[in-house]
Amino acid sequence: MAKIIKGKPVADKITEELAKEIEMFHKQGGKPKLATLRVGERGDDIAYERGATNRMKKVGIEVESVVLPQDITQNDFIVALEKLNKDDAVNGILIFRPLPKQIDESVIKYIIDPKKDIDCFSPLNVGKLAEGDPTGFNPCTPTAIMEMLDFYGVELKGADASVIGSSMVVGKPAALLLLNQKATVTVAHSKTKDTAQVARNGDIVVVGVGVAKLVKEDWISQGAVVIDVGINVDEEGNMCGDVDFDNVQKKASMITPVPGGVGSVTTTILAKHVVKAYKQQNG
Amino acid sequence: MAKIIKGKPVADKITEELAKEIEMFHKQGGKPKLATLRVGERGDDIAYERGATNRMKKVGIEVESVVLPQDITQNDFIVALEKLNKDDAVNGILIFRPLPKQIDESVIKYIIDPKKDIDCFSPLNVGKLAEGDPTGFNPCTPTAIMEMLDFYGVELKGADASVIGSSMVVGKPAALLLLNQKATVTVAHSKTKDTAQVARNGDIVVVGVGVAKLVKEDWISQGAVVIDVGINVDEEGNMCGDVDFDNVQKKASMITPVPGGVGSVTTTILAKHVVKAYKQQNG
Repeated sequence: MAKIIKGKPVADKITEELAKEIEMFHKQGGKPKLATLRVGERGDDIAYERGATNRMKKVGIEVESVVLPQDITQNDFIVALEKLNKDDAVNGILIFRPLPKQIDESVIKYIIDPKKDIDCFSPLNVGKLAEGDPTGFNPCTPTAIMEMLDFYGVELKGADASVIGSSMVVGKPAALLLLNQKATVTVAHSKTKDTAQVARNGDIVVVGVGVAKLVKEDWISQGAVVIDVGINVDEEGNMCGDVDFDNVQKKASMITPVPGGVGSVTTTILAKHVVKAYKQQNG
Repeated sequence: MAKIIKGKPVADKITEELAKEIEMFHKQGGKPKLATLRVGERGDDIAYERGATNRMKKVGIEVESVVLPQDITQNDFIVALEKLNKDDAVNGILIFRPLPKQIDESVIKYIIDPKKDIDCFSPLNVGKLAEGDPTGFNPCTPTAIMEMLDFYGVELKGADASVIGSSMVVGKPAALLLLNQKATVTVAHSKTKDTAQVARNGDIVVVGVGVAKLVKEDWISQGAVVIDVGINVDEEGNMCGDVDFDNVQKKASMITPVPGGVGSVTTTILAKHVVKAYKQQNG
């Protein structure tokens, strides 16, 4: 039976380190601050905003929540974003996506200040991710995966890592981060001939496709480390991941639960990135 | 025996298309122009400069060759680069790398105007590459690979593509371009446990590691397409690739020669990118 590797101890460790650092900043009169920028009242966004705000407060990061009406024009959205870009008291900016369709994300991603772009919306930060440039901000979920692997002592160098899913939010950046750590990386997706075989080749299997319980026991090699980034609801109305947890845990050496796995670390990465931005902006 | 797929027909086809387009620009009074920026007198740089210049002239692109002394300061280099950035007559800028060590490439890559950065030096263009954003400039060698595969009708969607080598110049961008075309991509490198096995899994095998004749016959599956990006000199003083051509061609369905393969297409991609930059800059 696999060791169930939870996100909470990882988040707790990072939180503790951040809280200490931020306490020091406070003593020096510094106040790291995140601004969140939400359009409309989508439940997902509100839940994520609440989670992020709680996490920031827990470590001593101030939060300014900007909420704009659902029918805001692109121009007015840009005005609000540029105000945050220019505000020296704001170190990080988190824009909840997807934005409503009157706002063109391919325009906005060039407007957010890359130095405050703590969740890798700006193409400049995507470039830094691909280059392995440590000054950039990598996307939070794949970064959370890397923190999990590091915390639980999973060796990446030379490991065969199979990434199932190639989205810009999870799969592609996770593949780049694993490759930058010298794993041998394979990326599978909807056009892959034999995704089960790709998964079976992995010492580490990262799954982020959004299909409930897609990954079965026979997709996983004995002793593999399984990282499940999916968040779905099964036929009985329970939250579940992309991995058939009950069966796969019989073969894996480690497996993340859903909920309680990678998702528990994501907002902590946001906090870590706000602190990183604060430090970069204050020398 | 494999079909030997040469670069020349690919370069000729692109050249012909570009020449027609540029003739039209000339009629409208437009003059696409490349500026090359070289520091010192390295033989590699001079050879590449000569090849690029000849290729540009062949299609009707003007070339301005800027040559700076080997001991130029970073500051003076930046002055020269910014002059080209600001010169409206210059559509594309090619900087020969590596730069001498007094010039910090991690500074310069943020100074070249991304709109004129036709060989993907700017992190912004690396970001566009990772995102699959067609407005960017991908690096020339991996783009030449993609043009070869397209010209010779190699199906990428769902194909298993093995990339041997993970450099920022060849392997990593080639992997991203193949992934963006929905190949199932595996990247192997110096820390990979069994590079031969990774190669054997490929319907398409792209090799760019700089080790003469590394890839042997038993590394390649019957019928695979083999793209060799290496340029080495063998023990007899002959130019050769990273693939043991004479033996691998017995198993592959298609194979690029060295010389005469991917390398023959690279400067044509430069020309294509100058034209793309010209069009973007002139609406």
